[in-house]
Amino acid sequence: MRLKGRDIISLEDLSNGEISFIFNTADKFEPIARGKKKSSALAGKVMAALFFEPSTRTRLSFESAMQRLGGNVIGFAEPTTSSIAKGETLADTIKTVEKYSDVIVIRHPKMGAARLAAEVAEIPVINAGDGAGHHPTQTMLDLYTIRKTMGKFKNLNVGLIGDLKYGRTVHSLAYAASRFNNKLFLISPPGLEMPREIVGDLSSQGKEISETSDLREVLPKLDVLYVTRIQKERFSDPAEYAKVKNTYKIELKTLETAKPTLCVLHPLPRVDEISSELDSSPYAKYFDQVFYGVVIRAAILSLLLG
Amino acid sequence: MRLKGRDIISLEDLSNGEISFIFNTADKFEPIARGKKKSSALAGKVMAALFFEPSTRTRLSFESAMQRLGGNVIGFAEPTTSSIAKGETLADTIKTVEKYSDVIVIRHPKMGAARLAAEVAEIPVINAGDGAGHHPTQTMLDLYTIRKTMGKFKNLNVGLIGDLKYGRTVHSLAYAASRFNNKLFLISPPGLEMPREIVGDLSSQGKEISETSDLREVLPKLDVLYVTRIQKERFSDPAEYAKVKNTYKIELKTLETAKPTLCVLHPLPRVDEISSELDSSPYAKYFDQVFYGVVIRAAILSLLLG
Amino acid sequence: MRLKGRDIISLEDLSNGEISFIFNTADKFEPIARGKKKSSALAGKVMAALFFEPSTRTRLSFESAMQRLGGNVIGFAEPTTSSIAKGETLADTIKTVEKYSDVIVIRHPKMGAARLAAEVAEIPVINAGDGAGHHPTQTMLDLYTIRKTMGKFKNLNVGLIGDLKYGRTVHSLAYAASRFNNKLFLISPPGLEMPREIVGDLSSQGKEISETSDLREVLPKLDVLYVTRIQKERFSDPAEYAKVKNTYKIELKTLETAKPTLCVLHPLPRVDEISSELDSSPYAKYFDQVFYGVVIRAAILSLLLG
Repeated sequence: MRLKGRDIISLEDLSNGEISFIFNTADKFEPIARGKKKSSALAGKVMAALFFEPSTRTRLSFESAMQRLGGNVIGFAEPTTSSIAKGETLADTIKTVEKYSDVIVIRHPKMGAARLAAEVAEIPVINAGDGAGHHPTQTMLDLYTIRKTMGKFKNLNVGLIGDLKYGRTVHSLAYAASRFNNKLFLISPPGLEMPREIVGDLSSQGKEISETSDLREVLPKLDVLYVTRIQKERFSDPAEYAKVKNTYKIELKTLETAKPTLCVLHPLPRVDEISSELDSSPYAKYFDQVFYGVVIRAAILSLLLG
Repeated sequence: MRLKGRDIISLEDLSNGEISFIFNTADKFEPIARGKKKSSALAGKVMAALFFEPSTRTRLSFESAMQRLGGNVIGFAEPTTSSIAKGETLADTIKTVEKYSDVIVIRHPKMGAARLAAEVAEIPVINAGDGAGHHPTQTMLDLYTIRKTMGKFKNLNVGLIGDLKYGRTVHSLAYAASRFNNKLFLISPPGLEMPREIVGDLSSQGKEISETSDLREVLPKLDVLYVTRIQKERFSDPAEYAKVKNTYKIELKTLETAKPTLCVLHPLPRVDEISSELDSSPYAKYFDQVFYGVVIRAAILSLLLG
Repeated sequence: MRLKGRDIISLEDLSNGEISFIFNTADKFEPIARGKKKSSALAGKVMAALFFEPSTRTRLSFESAMQRLGGNVIGFAEPTTSSIAKGETLADTIKTVEKYSDVIVIRHPKMGAARLAAEVAEIPVINAGDGAGHHPTQTMLDLYTIRKTMGKFKNLNVGLIGDLKYGRTVHSLAYAASRFNNKLFLISPPGLEMPREIVGDLSSQGKEISETSDLREVLPKLDVLYVTRIQKERFSDPAEYAKVKNTYKIELKTLETAKPTLCVLHPLPRVDEISSELDSSPYAKYFDQVFYGVVIRAAILSLLLG
């Protein structure tokens, strides 16, 4: 199987076999991503990181991955730095930048921007988030963390909790977890449920989905609990927000009825939806998740650049 | 011939022989600039990119060139990031930064800043644009692209079209093209003609220059057409701007009477002075031009650092 | 002696023996820091430079040091670029960034931030300035420059002149110089004297300290003169500022009674507290000081990363 020259715009462009192939490749990159083993696999290669909106976490993760492999990085961290974009079409910017580089990582506030970049560019393009669109390496690192932690990524009970209405991350993860035959448990306050289109879409494919607003009902069954932030701005009534925020906060005592092997994930940054007392518990895998992001991105960069 | 330790502030500092030497060196750097061949020629070396005004395109091009050669980059992309400059003279900034690096690339809004930096620094300084002054690597990449595309850079009919009054790029190119015995055809709307000093200067040296406001008159003779943007701000009457803008827009049908080998260049970014329908035509060399910028800069960095 | 894995938060955490060990190590890094000798000692390693407030000089110095050793750099140059910090605790930011890197260099406006980062991180943390707190690599480069210039760093007469009240740099240097049995001469205008706590603290340890407002009194005795800027904002009366500024400006004629071997230092940037006519004199060591900053940081990075 070869991914050389491919674009990574949406997880839907990749088959289950290709995703597994990326994961198997990633396993070999762990010591390199950890700085324990040197690599010059991408020496002489240049990654262009074009962040049309800031995302320090994603940018640093990609930059670390590229450099761990001996490669180089150029780019910009936010649009104000980027005179390149002034009055120029995105297509022209891409056709310019690809002359400086071997792979383009693009973050853009507008949905569809990464797809457009990929159509224009002759070199591989990786979507690092395009507004309400996709962020495929985030979803892959979520899946990969589950696989590393649970030893597999199928037939698991995967809970998604928090704001399931607006979160791009949980939408993508819902599709991806279903593709690999995991059962979904959706836990959200009224008004922030997973969009009906997504639930309908997955149900019509015969996927198992359970919905509730009460974590306690389903917690004992869960293998994975993926937590997302509930933002104040979603509520017109501050009192309602305060109530929901407290109800959905994950603390050690919240998890009393959980399996001892429960894997708690979070795309980060967290504010206070997971108590920091959890950090030193065996449940907490969200900082491992950060590290696996580097591993996955190193694997992808390596595969795309052959 | 050796350029080790030299500053590159203005093309006038370089003899025709030296420019040809840089071009011949550049030919060898093409596979490296394309990421097809690894180089560690500048391993352990540090380029300081000091952008006192943003110019993403130029910055990324230099950074790519340096890194393709195995070298490293430090610097800043815009002045707000640069506390280094607060209340400090440019001379002190340069005397500081040269302790961190082996070569300084400087972009500055004020004419003469690069020359000052070169006088102060013991290490080589490359001018990456100093206001209304010079931008010698831009001019060299323009010349080099013509040489690569046409197989030579002499006895060609070189057309410059658009705003010839305010464009630093076309002023430098006019001098450079004349130095190598090419004939100039200047095409501009009334009021945006090439400054009389430059035309007089070149004429008095016996250079052949033809001026017109109508591209059609001269198009069939041209080997090269260098297009620059006409900016709205130059016109007090918006209607006048709209008329000129349309007249000077280059489309496929505009080029019907052109030689089939016509080479169309543009310093980029373009807005709409060249129709995107041209991009896939054999005329369009402006994205090649972007790539040759990396090649030229790699050659220069390599030569200056020995 | 091993410093592998250690944090560098304050000079007080290091014994005199450890500081000497760092200096002895630094001696070997001089040709590497100068770009005369290649090193791949830190190939594959990643330094995260987290600048929560801009400090271009310190950042470029660390980046140069890391890259001279073959290592890589990720990070941000100022907080606006750093979405990583939005609503996230510093602890979480650190626990995230350490997954991308092998060592963290942190600059933060709040005193204590670097110490907190070091407590949270499993990888080494270097304090690159935490508000009114510490900046240990600055103090070490000050000491190291004196050692390189004078051939030793004990039994010297070290003068500190200028604003001794507010300057973090001179406070740290006063403690450090005293630790190595040098005699301090404090020269400052009324109202900007060294804080009484520091003078009392050092006196009670039996350190020799002399205070004056007149440089001429002590100049002939001095081996080192460390100059700091006197800021206008410290004075309510502009006339008072103008008087002090002129009195404390170091010019060639100011130094007529100085030892010929006097070593004049400055943490830079300078405004006009040292006349530029001094730059080419044998007294001026402040640009050497800039270079030794790279040497010291290269040594520290190398030691911490083993």
